[in-house]
Amino acid sequence: MTSSIPDLPPLILSAGINSTGYSAGSWNSPGRSWNRFLDYSHYRNAAEIAHDGGLDALFLSDHPALQRDNTSRPIHTFDPIVLFASLAAAVPDIGFFLTASTSYNSPYNLARRLASLDHISGGRVVWNAVTSFNPDVASNFGSDPLPEREERYRRGTEFIDVVKKLWRSWDADAEGFPDAGTLWDDTTARRIDHRGEFFSVQGPLNVPIGPQGYPLVAQAGGSVQGIDLAGRHADLVYAPLLSIPAARTFTAEVRAQALAHGRSAGEVKFVPGLVPIIAATRAEARRKHERLNGHDGEASLVAAVVKRLAPALDGLSAHDIVPPERLDPVPGQRGPIGFARSFRDVAAAAPTTLRELARTAEGGHRLVVGTPEDIAADITEWWKSGTVDGFTLQFPVLPDDLQLFVDEVIPLLVRAGVRRPGYVPGTLRDKFGFGYPVERIKSA
Amino acid sequence: MTSSIPDLPPLILSAGINSTGYSAGSWNSPGRSWNRFLDYSHYRNAAEIAHDGGLDALFLSDHPALQRDNTSRPIHTFDPIVLFASLAAAVPDIGFFLTASTSYNSPYNLARRLASLDHISGGRVVWNAVTSFNPDVASNFGSDPLPEREERYRRGTEFIDVVKKLWRSWDADAEGFPDAGTLWDDTTARRIDHRGEFFSVQGPLNVPIGPQGYPLVAQAGGSVQGIDLAGRHADLVYAPLLSIPAARTFTAEVRAQALAHGRSAGEVKFVPGLVPIIAATRAEARRKHERLNGHDGEASLVAAVVKRLAPALDGLSAHDIVPPERLDPVPGQRGPIGFARSFRDVAAAAPTTLRELARTAEGGHRLVVGTPEDIAADITEWWKSGTVDGFTLQFPVLPDDLQLFVDEVIPLLVRAGVRRPGYVPGTLRDKFGFGYPVERIKSA
Repeated sequence: MTSSIPDLPPLILSAGINSTGYSAGSWNSPGRSWNRFLDYSHYRNAAEIAHDGGLDALFLSDHPALQRDNTSRPIHTFDPIVLFASLAAAVPDIGFFLTASTSYNSPYNLARRLASLDHISGGRVVWNAVTSFNPDVASNFGSDPLPEREERYRRGTEFIDVVKKLWRSWDADAEGFPDAGTLWDDTTARRIDHRGEFFSVQGPLNVPIGPQGYPLVAQAGGSVQGIDLAGRHADLVYAPLLSIPAARTFTAEVRAQALAHGRSAGEVKFVPGLVPIIAATRAEARRKHERLNGHDGEASLVAAVVKRLAPALDGLSAHDIVPPERLDPVPGQRGPIGFARSFRDVAAAAPTTLRELARTAEGGHRLVVGTPEDIAADITEWWKSGTVDGFTLQFPVLPDDLQLFVDEVIPLLVRAGVRRPGYVPGTLRDKFGFGYPVERIKSA
Repeated sequence: MTSSIPDLPPLILSAGINSTGYSAGSWNSPGRSWNRFLDYSHYRNAAEIAHDGGLDALFLSDHPALQRDNTSRPIHTFDPIVLFASLAAAVPDIGFFLTASTSYNSPYNLARRLASLDHISGGRVVWNAVTSFNPDVASNFGSDPLPEREERYRRGTEFIDVVKKLWRSWDADAEGFPDAGTLWDDTTARRIDHRGEFFSVQGPLNVPIGPQGYPLVAQAGGSVQGIDLAGRHADLVYAPLLSIPAARTFTAEVRAQALAHGRSAGEVKFVPGLVPIIAATRAEARRKHERLNGHDGEASLVAAVVKRLAPALDGLSAHDIVPPERLDPVPGQRGPIGFARSFRDVAAAAPTTLRELARTAEGGHRLVVGTPEDIAADITEWWKSGTVDGFTLQFPVLPDDLQLFVDEVIPLLVRAGVRRPGYVPGTLRDKFGFGYPVERIKSA
C-alpha cells in the first residue's frame, strides 16, 4: 500500500504542545507533576515523542496574558518563539507552527525573529498570524481598549503585508557580492519605505532571505475578515471544522477569496484542529472524555458547551435539537467567530441534539473519541474525501496522549498507506509541497 | 596558586559572538566562508569553543536595523533572543548576555521572552538593556524621529521598572496552590496596574518566577543618564573603560548613583569591553591589528579613530598630543557618549598622542595587542587592581581569535590562579556572586 504514497499529496499532521495539554484539567493529571508547564524538558520530551512518530510540526497557540481561569492549565506560558528556538536546536526534521499576534507586535521585530528562526532551524517555520481578541491582552499593552474586529483585521492584513515586504527586501541571490568587496548594495538589500494606515517601516530587514525563502504563513480565524485574510495571505489554515460538509463549505469560501486575490485555489492547505481521545474501547474513551472535564457523566460536557457558547444555547436541555440559527454570529461579537460558526454548521447539516454537539468538539475543535482504529479511520476518511490536507492535533494530556497517538495510531496510518514513515528531507515547503516564493540564497 | 581562588570574587569573562567577529573586515577573512554570519552552526561552534574555555557567558550586541556600511560585517543579523534560545538548548553552563532595546519593544513581550529564556536555560540570562540611538532603527518602527537622549532614558528607566514589576508579579513560592485545586489566585499572581509616562501595563506576567528569580540586568551607556540608569537598575555594567584610572573614576560615579538609589555600592559589577589581538610576538600582533583594519601600516588606524570621533579630532596628525577637552561630550550629541568619554579620560590621565590613542581602542572598546602572556598579564593586572569584575571580550575574527584565546590565554589565567577551570554549578547569580531578588519557585 505504501507504494501509493508518492502519488498522494502529503497528509500534514502537527502536534499542539501547549502547557500540560489541551484539556483544562491536564495540569492535575495523576502521576505527572503539576508544574511541568514550566519545565523545558517536558516540552523537549513532547517534541521528541512527536519526532519519533514522524509528525510534521509542533504547534503552539498564544496569548500574551495570564488566562483568568485559575483552575485550568496555564495554556500560554513561555513565549512560543523562545521555546521553539530551543527545540529547533534539540530536535531535527520537525516543523514549528508558531502563533504570534499582529495586534501587539511590531512588523520589523517579528519579521526578524521569524526569519532568524527559519535560518537557524533550516527552514522549518510556519507563522500562524492571529489578531488578539482578549481584553486582558490589550491591557498588557497600553490603556487603549481592544480595537473592533474590523480594525484588528485591517491592522493584521497590513502587518502581514509589511512582514512579507521585509522578508523580500534582500535579494534572493547574495552570491557574488563579496567579490566586489561589499556585502550588498541598494539594489540587493532594498528599503521598503512602507507607509500605511498602521505602520511606517523603512527596511531593509537585517536578515537575508532564508532556506525556504521565508516562512509559511498560516491563519486561524473563521470570521469574514479572517477568511479574507486567509485568501490573501495564508499558505495553511488552522480552523475549527467539525464535519466534512461544513469543511467543504468553508474551504470553498477561502479558496474563492484566494482566487479573488489573484492566487490559485490550490495554494491554500487546510489543517483543522482535531482532539483525539484514545482508549482501548469506545466506552472507555467516552468515560475518558468525561473524566477530562472533571466529571463522571455527560452532564458536565453539555454544561461546558452551553457555557462556552453563552448565551446562544441558554435554556436548551441535553436532548433538545439545537436550532442552527441560534449559533449565527452576533454583530459586535468580541471572541472568535470561527468556533460558534463551526457548531452552527454541524447543527445545520443534520438535526443535532445538544448532547451530540457536546461530543462533537472540545475547546472549539473537532473531537474524535474512540479506539486507535476509530481515530485512524476518521483521519483516513477525511483525508480520502480530499476536504482537508491534514490536522493540527490537540492532545488532552501531555505527554501521555501524544505518546498514545504515536504508539497506537501512527502505525495504523502508515499501514493504511496514508502516512509515510519518517521524514522527507528539505524545508517545510518541500515536505508540504509548497513552492518557493523567492529563489534561495546560495551558499559560498 | 589555585587555592587562592575561593577567597577571590569570580573574574567574569564573556565572549562576544556577533556576526563574523568584532572587526569590520572579519567577513572577508581568509579560509572562512564570508556568509557564516547566516549559519547557525558558526554560532554554535563559537559557543562550544567558549564553553571548552570555561567562559562565563556569550554576549550579543544588537540593533534592529541593517547597518549602512556594506563593506563591514553585518554585525546584527539574527535576533539575539532567538539565537540564544537555540544555543541554550545546545550548550550547557554558559550564560547569555543579551542586548534588547527599551526603545522599540513592549515591556510585557520582552519581560516574557527573557523570563521564558531564563526558565529554559536554567537561569543563565543577563538582559543588557539599551536605548536605541540609531535613526535607521527609529525608521523601522514608525514615522516619528528618534527621541532625544533624555526622553529615551526616561522611557528606558520606566521600561525596566515595568519589566521588574512583571517579573515580580508571581509569588515566589507557588507550591501548595494545586492542593486547593487552583494554580494561583489574586494574592499569588498579582496585577501590577502600572500607569506611567510611557506605559500602561496590567499584568500579571504569564511566566512565573524563574530559576534565578529573574534575569540579571546590565547597562551599557556612559552618559549622565546611562550612569543614573546603571545606578538604579544594573547588576552588570558593560562600558568602554580604557585605563585603570579612568575605570576608577567611572565605577565610582556609578557606585555613587547606586547608593543614591538606595542600593549598596558593591551590588554593581563592571565588565568592560576588551578586544584582544593575539599573536606569537608583539610585532606580529601589531601587524595583525593593522591588517584587521585593511592596511599595512598605522596610518589607517589613526584615520579610523579620527573618523569615528569626527569632528572632535579633525586636523590633528599622528604625533600630536590629543587635547582631552576636544573629546568632551557635545550638547545634543546623538550617538553613544561613552565611547568619546572613554577616549577623553585616557587623554586626560596622561599626555597621549593620536597614534597612541589609535592603539588604545577598537570600535570604542579597550584594545590589548600582544602575545598570550601580554593579554593574560593585562587581564591579571586589571583584575588584581580591584577596578573591574571581569571583561566582555570582543574577538576580531570569529571563531579564530576566540579559539586562540581559549587555547593560549585561558590556561595562563588558570595557572596564575585568576580563573578557575570549568564551571561552578548553579545559575548566573550563583556563578557571579549575586543574591537572589526573590525566593525561587519550588518544584512539586
